[in-house]
Amino acid sequence: MSHHILRTILYHHARKFSYKVEELRLPNGARGEYAYIHHDGAAIAVPVTATGEFILVKQYRFPTHKYLLEFPAGTMDEGEQPYHTIDRELAEETGYRAHRWDYLGAFYICPGYSSEILHVYLARELEKLSVPPAQDSDEEIEVVSLSGSELKTMITARKGLLTIDAKSVTALYMAEAFLPTAP
Amino acid sequence: MSHHILRTILYHHARKFSYKVEELRLPNGARGEYAYIHHDGAAIAVPVTATGEFILVKQYRFPTHKYLLEFPAGTMDEGEQPYHTIDRELAEETGYRAHRWDYLGAFYICPGYSSEILHVYLARELEKLSVPPAQDSDEEIEVVSLSGSELKTMITARKGLLTIDAKSVTALYMAEAFLPTAP
Repeated sequence: MSHHILRTILYHHARKFSYKVEELRLPNGARGEYAYIHHDGAAIAVPVTATGEFILVKQYRFPTHKYLLEFPAGTMDEGEQPYHTIDRELAEETGYRAHRWDYLGAFYICPGYSSEILHVYLARELEKLSVPPAQDSDEEIEVVSLSGSELKTMITARKGLLTIDAKSVTALYMAEAFLPTAP
Repeated sequence: MSHHILRTILYHHARKFSYKVEELRLPNGARGEYAYIHHDGAAIAVPVTATGEFILVKQYRFPTHKYLLEFPAGTMDEGEQPYHTIDRELAEETGYRAHRWDYLGAFYICPGYSSEILHVYLARELEKLSVPPAQDSDEEIEVVSLSGSELKTMITARKGLLTIDAKSVTALYMAEAFLPTAP
């Protein structure tokens, strides 16, 4: 016997996802209510320059009340392929265009309460655009470049709360084996 | 000028978090509505046996309609210290107790729409409990052990969607430098 959805209640439509509560019948026959974010997926780039620097963005994340470091990423528009999403977002958020893309796979960012899948791309042969596209964000985004060892130290230094988020660490790990010098 | 919360609407109280919509005034003066999961935090263990095997759990994650591999983790009860949370969850989910704990730091799992912080612990000197505590979950949890190289291959193999989630990959990365043999 599998998991069976008895009822779905839509609580709220946000710009990039919706919040739903589902009543499920579990394989053991029990019933339970489960709340989650329904999300249509997103894409993230690990952009690496010719000299081995990683390009990240620093932006304010209102749920955390902090500025965090992340790899460029964005939500897929309806019907959009993830490659098109990340090609657009990389340019908008960082002012770079990549001429070499490699798909590294995908992962669930927070499967306990979100259906969001992140598609991961390695972005290389970066070109700095002379006229970058306008940012669609209502926030300023700061572009930051870090070496692989700076990133790795940030993640493994045991200095409390990381400035870089889980999706970016995961994407970096997925890219690691693929890079000439491991970060 | 900083980010200023003008109004907060609580949409829904779930068991382990709540869903809120906030109206913010941004530093540039613009106003915006932002929806997010308000979460009081959680803890995750990277349990490693004396022979270098990693202990994970396989469980159904209803938002994804899949069984996923994750390191043992759990939400902090109100006022609970993360070490107590993870000590309890490790025993409940895996039937192991660790006699050596190291705190590795913390990270934001999904800062775009969640305030959740994960506290990361390396759990070693594992003892298999003869009478494991009852699982508080309504789902069965399967305990899986994998070598470091099996885990690393899973993450870097470029075989599409990962079975392991982002918080587990991030926790593994944070633990890597700390282990005698890197995974």
